[in-house]
Amino acid sequence: MDDHTNTGTPVSGAKISTRVYPAGTLNMLSREEVARLSDATEEVGEVLRQCALAVLNSGEQGDDAESMLRAYEDFRIQVHQVNRGMRIDLENAPACAFVDGKMIRGIRELLSAVVRDIVYFHTEIGPNPYFDLAMPEGITNTVFEILRNARLLNAQREPNLVVCWGGHSISGEEYDYTKEVGYQLGLRGRDICTGCGPGAMKGPMKGATIGHAKQRTLPGHYVGVSEPGIIAAEAPNPIVNELVILPDIEKRLEAFVRLGHGIVVFPGGVGTAEEILFMLGILLNPANREAPFPLIFSGPEAARGYFEEIDRFIGLTLGDRARELYRIVIDDPVAVAREMTRGIDQVREWRVHINDAFYFNWLLDIQPSFQQPFEPSHAAMRSLEISRELQPHQLAANLRRAFSGIVSGNVKPQGVRAIREHGPFEIRGEADIMEALDQLLRRFVAQNRMKLPGGAAYEPCYRIVS
Amino acid sequence: MDDHTNTGTPVSGAKISTRVYPAGTLNMLSREEVARLSDATEEVGEVLRQCALAVLNSGEQGDDAESMLRAYEDFRIQVHQVNRGMRIDLENAPACAFVDGKMIRGIRELLSAVVRDIVYFHTEIGPNPYFDLAMPEGITNTVFEILRNARLLNAQREPNLVVCWGGHSISGEEYDYTKEVGYQLGLRGRDICTGCGPGAMKGPMKGATIGHAKQRTLPGHYVGVSEPGIIAAEAPNPIVNELVILPDIEKRLEAFVRLGHGIVVFPGGVGTAEEILFMLGILLNPANREAPFPLIFSGPEAARGYFEEIDRFIGLTLGDRARELYRIVIDDPVAVAREMTRGIDQVREWRVHINDAFYFNWLLDIQPSFQQPFEPSHAAMRSLEISRELQPHQLAANLRRAFSGIVSGNVKPQGVRAIREHGPFEIRGEADIMEALDQLLRRFVAQNRMKLPGGAAYEPCYRIVS
Amino acid sequence: MDDHTNTGTPVSGAKISTRVYPAGTLNMLSREEVARLSDATEEVGEVLRQCALAVLNSGEQGDDAESMLRAYEDFRIQVHQVNRGMRIDLENAPACAFVDGKMIRGIRELLSAVVRDIVYFHTEIGPNPYFDLAMPEGITNTVFEILRNARLLNAQREPNLVVCWGGHSISGEEYDYTKEVGYQLGLRGRDICTGCGPGAMKGPMKGATIGHAKQRTLPGHYVGVSEPGIIAAEAPNPIVNELVILPDIEKRLEAFVRLGHGIVVFPGGVGTAEEILFMLGILLNPANREAPFPLIFSGPEAARGYFEEIDRFIGLTLGDRARELYRIVIDDPVAVAREMTRGIDQVREWRVHINDAFYFNWLLDIQPSFQQPFEPSHAAMRSLEISRELQPHQLAANLRRAFSGIVSGNVKPQGVRAIREHGPFEIRGEADIMEALDQLLRRFVAQNRMKLPGGAAYEPCYRIVS
Amino acid sequence: MDDHTNTGTPVSGAKISTRVYPAGTLNMLSREEVARLSDATEEVGEVLRQCALAVLNSGEQGDDAESMLRAYEDFRIQVHQVNRGMRIDLENAPACAFVDGKMIRGIRELLSAVVRDIVYFHTEIGPNPYFDLAMPEGITNTVFEILRNARLLNAQREPNLVVCWGGHSISGEEYDYTKEVGYQLGLRGRDICTGCGPGAMKGPMKGATIGHAKQRTLPGHYVGVSEPGIIAAEAPNPIVNELVILPDIEKRLEAFVRLGHGIVVFPGGVGTAEEILFMLGILLNPANREAPFPLIFSGPEAARGYFEEIDRFIGLTLGDRARELYRIVIDDPVAVAREMTRGIDQVREWRVHINDAFYFNWLLDIQPSFQQPFEPSHAAMRSLEISRELQPHQLAANLRRAFSGIVSGNVKPQGVRAIREHGPFEIRGEADIMEALDQLLRRFVAQNRMKLPGGAAYEPCYRIVS
Repeated sequence: MDDHTNTGTPVSGAKISTRVYPAGTLNMLSREEVARLSDATEEVGEVLRQCALAVLNSGEQGDDAESMLRAYEDFRIQVHQVNRGMRIDLENAPACAFVDGKMIRGIRELLSAVVRDIVYFHTEIGPNPYFDLAMPEGITNTVFEILRNARLLNAQREPNLVVCWGGHSISGEEYDYTKEVGYQLGLRGRDICTGCGPGAMKGPMKGATIGHAKQRTLPGHYVGVSEPGIIAAEAPNPIVNELVILPDIEKRLEAFVRLGHGIVVFPGGVGTAEEILFMLGILLNPANREAPFPLIFSGPEAARGYFEEIDRFIGLTLGDRARELYRIVIDDPVAVAREMTRGIDQVREWRVHINDAFYFNWLLDIQPSFQQPFEPSHAAMRSLEISRELQPHQLAANLRRAFSGIVSGNVKPQGVRAIREHGPFEIRGEADIMEALDQLLRRFVAQNRMKLPGGAAYEPCYRIVS
Repeated sequence: MDDHTNTGTPVSGAKISTRVYPAGTLNMLSREEVARLSDATEEVGEVLRQCALAVLNSGEQGDDAESMLRAYEDFRIQVHQVNRGMRIDLENAPACAFVDGKMIRGIRELLSAVVRDIVYFHTEIGPNPYFDLAMPEGITNTVFEILRNARLLNAQREPNLVVCWGGHSISGEEYDYTKEVGYQLGLRGRDICTGCGPGAMKGPMKGATIGHAKQRTLPGHYVGVSEPGIIAAEAPNPIVNELVILPDIEKRLEAFVRLGHGIVVFPGGVGTAEEILFMLGILLNPANREAPFPLIFSGPEAARGYFEEIDRFIGLTLGDRARELYRIVIDDPVAVAREMTRGIDQVREWRVHINDAFYFNWLLDIQPSFQQPFEPSHAAMRSLEISRELQPHQLAANLRRAFSGIVSGNVKPQGVRAIREHGPFEIRGEADIMEALDQLLRRFVAQNRMKLPGGAAYEPCYRIVS
Repeated sequence: MDDHTNTGTPVSGAKISTRVYPAGTLNMLSREEVARLSDATEEVGEVLRQCALAVLNSGEQGDDAESMLRAYEDFRIQVHQVNRGMRIDLENAPACAFVDGKMIRGIRELLSAVVRDIVYFHTEIGPNPYFDLAMPEGITNTVFEILRNARLLNAQREPNLVVCWGGHSISGEEYDYTKEVGYQLGLRGRDICTGCGPGAMKGPMKGATIGHAKQRTLPGHYVGVSEPGIIAAEAPNPIVNELVILPDIEKRLEAFVRLGHGIVVFPGGVGTAEEILFMLGILLNPANREAPFPLIFSGPEAARGYFEEIDRFIGLTLGDRARELYRIVIDDPVAVAREMTRGIDQVREWRVHINDAFYFNWLLDIQPSFQQPFEPSHAAMRSLEISRELQPHQLAANLRRAFSGIVSGNVKPQGVRAIREHGPFEIRGEADIMEALDQLLRRFVAQNRMKLPGGAAYEPCYRIVS
Repeated sequence: MDDHTNTGTPVSGAKISTRVYPAGTLNMLSREEVARLSDATEEVGEVLRQCALAVLNSGEQGDDAESMLRAYEDFRIQVHQVNRGMRIDLENAPACAFVDGKMIRGIRELLSAVVRDIVYFHTEIGPNPYFDLAMPEGITNTVFEILRNARLLNAQREPNLVVCWGGHSISGEEYDYTKEVGYQLGLRGRDICTGCGPGAMKGPMKGATIGHAKQRTLPGHYVGVSEPGIIAAEAPNPIVNELVILPDIEKRLEAFVRLGHGIVVFPGGVGTAEEILFMLGILLNPANREAPFPLIFSGPEAARGYFEEIDRFIGLTLGDRARELYRIVIDDPVAVAREMTRGIDQVREWRVHINDAFYFNWLLDIQPSFQQPFEPSHAAMRSLEISRELQPHQLAANLRRAFSGIVSGNVKPQGVRAIREHGPFEIRGEADIMEALDQLLRRFVAQNRMKLPGGAAYEPCYRIVS
């Protein structure tokens, strides 16, 4: 047990019912907005309930969303309008969110962020004609609006936000490595943005905290970017002090790449592969050729094979041009931090050069194939075109979707149900790509990177059809 | 000349063309918002131009809007989208807004506020169905939204905002008195909100600045609340460090009474009478009976007659109940400050008691007759019902409109033109009210409180028809 | 009456007895230090009493120390040790220092500064062998220690402190001019340091306050540097927010030149002439040749003659080399501010170049003849050597002493008494210098610059003996 | 390995020579002070060298001072005067103190604190007659002066500083327990003060950091209080952000009890026993009877026996009155934090009641027997009077000295040498006390609490002579 996240006061399962007032960025609403919010609480009920529960439970270890949801199935959340503004009523909330009967300030902020984002999207953005989700600009504006509303955009900050991707369920050695990289980044003044949750999403933040403490820059910015479908499994760790919840996985990915000034990818499973393909697909877009974007894959010696595998797969599918877009650094946290620092310096120069904002990467071109939500039904998975006749960034888009479907079939309730009813997804495509894909996925299984909640042995949710 | 407002570097009339970036509360817009803003600049062109000019010229003394507009008729303002956000291009701007070629920071902030409010209303609020200007809540929400967008609402501040009303063209003795009241309020930790401009709108801010300096609470909040029709004549004085421009006079008045925790009325002319009737009309509304609202009329000894006149008129028209709503304090700034401090303490207690926000007086009931813009045409003026058969607050509403019409006929371009074409407005009503009104207005003239820009002798724009 | 300094609540002469706790920089003393302070209060009694009274009275206009001291001759101050630290007991203090029974925060800070400096010198510096007042380094260290103890030295600040010298009793036109120069300096980000008191010591601070308000840099630093012999006549005006009291006039002058990054001299009388000669004497020292030090003499058109007089006198006595050390700017506040800004930029570069601190001009060589207190007895005045056979900076030192003696004979209690008993001081020297001096002094009289407290006609306290 | 303290960039032993400028609280010295400092560097040379080395090495794990000193025996430190102030020159400094060639900010601050305290005592306090180390007040004033000079006294802070004592070499389980207590204290807004070093001195700070992070109160105050004889063995861990070095162990102990508002004692060895007896001896002093002082002994279940042992020994030697002065809490971090919070609330009330400062416990009476440095020679140890005929607090003083001697004989260079030359110390006294003492010490050995650097088997440095 390496830290304090499992050391709440209470016996696990203890519950508290109480009323709290929002903290952080949700304290200045009109009476009508509060009323809309309060009404909408009904409509977005279950999503709000689950996200709130994840956040309230963030002091507890564990990524088993199912069992957590079961343990607190009598948890209720309601938002009420009072004269002064808004009140959040909680029934049967996890006691670990409280100290001597008072909700921990950080958790109150995260809870407020959940209410803010879930309901804000539902009441303010969804119905607003300016946010046309059928258009690329509409989607980008939506992402911008959600981030701005969450106060994540700050015109005063220098570029220094490093996005860290990687698995939530990695080995102890890999976890320590992510902490070490975070520490070296923190020593060099970098802030950290991850997808919340444990493993590679938490280690870099922990490490950076120590680095920031030594450099006397506490508190740093520890940004968590989540979405409703994943937050229960990957609850914000307690270090996260800026949380935003995007409505779906594609907008979450767009948020990462528009917010971040560089990305480090640690070892992970299919989800990490999905993230890599998303990023490469965007960077392969000729419109994005000139803008620098530091992208580093890194892990301890034991992860060398993992990254070689990925590298080979990328070379085979997207070509050598794609392989030039990242650097692989094995077992050298200092080198990662230095390389990232250099890269971000270039990003800074570039933004100044083209007079773009530091806080939002407006000029990155993201095509609709990366923005439109992908619904991984059996039909959708079967009809994915996977062929080198596509342009590399188009092929990347489809491979990203394939990985996204597998993540869903593995862990998301809807996907799991679909697999249970109709058998594994079928994925078709060019023979050698299919073979490479199959090999990659088998390795993930062999390396225990497809571990399921609960720890059952992995049974593939897909079938390669070449 | 009592201060530095007329001491810009340049010879009056010198002009500078340049490009500036927004400062203050206008620096985090999406590309689409900037684009809309930029487009809308055309549509709101003349209003924006005049308001911007007023602000740029705020370093120059004088309330002669006409001559100022003439002197800078080649002034141009345009808003452009650049990669990073927004750029404001100025042609032939008054040189007094600059120091060594760089725009004074405070003026840059005021200019940004002008762009923000003028264009924001046009692009974001106007088209938004949530802000239904036909409904009382819609109007109140609009006022709230504009104030929030201007960052004037702050949940951390204690109630301490004193609204000061009164004439922009008062005697030196009266001006010194307003400074003295502001000084005593500042010594007691109060902030000041006025309608911008010179005279009674500037004196209290100047005085408060010295009080804040002595109490080491600089900078205080010096809030200016204006509207496009008046800002050219009453440009924000350079002390104003928070400026908001409401779309019309009724919303401006609503902003005053929802923002302020108490009101001091200094001597003034018809505009001041309009403000008094607005306030009394609201406080006479039975729904507002319980909420405390400190309202003090004050001036130096020489103004005693003025306030006795007003008091008598109120007693006659609105009755003794109305006379209990305010206190008249003559020649005693310390008493004003102490009384106001006591009153605001009661406001604080009340807001805590009913759990209402400190920063916005949600619970004050303002009826449509005070919210709906009044267009003072000859027909509208003639058909105003002025009779004691009305409920007092309804009579107050109509008298308020009558005064509003006279202000327009005196100084607003549209009103002046209407009078020129069709002769004076006719105002009808109960004989003794009409007589009292006539007498009051004649005194204003006699006391030189109907002074016109340029200093011409006053020729009444109205005719009492009993 | 141009401002609020004379607008305290109370009828002049009203008195309050109370207990206050120190504010600002005097709140962390050991019990023994408090005990020493408390003991020392007796010893420094009268000096402390007078300085405290000056500060408590700072809200009242007037430079008539005598009548002020008389009005409050029953004023008492005592410092007591309490468990928590120190308490200051006041009897019959001027009521204008209080608002609703509570001492104004700024005045409490100034009062604490008085206690701090008067007693600190007496208990901590005087007895400490490190501060050897017989040695130049000892004196400089003493000045440094007093300034540091007053928190006037700040390693984070950029060079921007402009010392303003000039008369406390100048014409309205000259006063307005000093405000205007202060305003232009404030607009350009400069802070102001003066000798406290009214006139040219207050105008620049008032002006700078408006400039800082417009540039949104409130509160600026408004530094007052005084000494016990002068503070009663030149009480800190209420804008001063950093006050330090040096033990004598020479250390006060040294504090000015080591703290300031440039000096503006406005019109004044003999005291101003003393300051000019002090400064020129130091700058003429060959050891100080290289270091830039902007020095500007400025006033409105009406002061042109005054400065020409001074200029001629300097040319005659100290030579043309001395005349190159300053620039005379007539009636152009903007030019003064720009020139000063340029000069301070050079000071900054120089300090960086030689790696000297920004906050204290260590490397300026000040010779003992400028540091040693000059006691202006008849004998001392008579034996001053005034001859061009001296090196220019030595001659400057002696002329400085001559002027200092005249100031004392004019207004300081001890000097006035000496003149009353023994007749005017005799000053001897080279004939043409004596003649020039005589002429200069006569002009001061003619221009009303030798005005005495109370307004009596001037009777010279000196006699030129050539 | 539980954290990042061992993860500096460099291969252990890598060295860097460089020049740094002070950071933190050492940047405003007079030229003479810098000169004295620079001169004194020679005199205090070896002490300064060792303390500086400890701090520079704080990123490295380990409490083996000897081997660390050996590894860097060519390390040199010199303080030089430069125009701007002070420069610290380092030769062969541990590379782990640097990131990309730049010293880590936190380490630069700690290094500056070392220079400040070591040299300040030598140059400013030692020679100053006000700090008469022969008198209790002189010693207390010295402690106050050192703490004030280190900016550790802050009049604005509420009482919330918890001193944590305990062993630097404790079991993993005990270490985790100290973290957990620190976490619960941090969640409740408490700051932590320890003696620097690893083990029980670091765990609570780490835990509190997480608690502060969750409550959004980062950075908290993590105060390290050390002395030259121990700092090499117990180097400040990198969380310490306020460090002070007292000249000897008695002043260090006095600093703890005057700064802290409550104390938690974790398991430890002889040093911890010394601290307990110091505290009890003071609290048994009748003069201190009334003042509340929360004192809690706590550890995990496995430490129950340890505290029972201590408790029994105290009951036997100092009596039941002494046993009422503390509470033992086993395996319940939440209870410790709650109890401490309650206790500190009482301390706050008491200080308000008697009007004492929050930042320094002036009124605690500490007798000379606890203040005078004890030099543990064979003679001094042999002549300690250990008898129940003494008053309890006198007996506590002598037992404290006995433990202090054993600590010295175990680990301090001088003590170790004395034992090597003359054999074990002899300790005499009443038979049953001697027996109890013997038993207690044997248990320490059995529990591995007398572990020596390097890990050699323990050979007692004392002999009980009854």
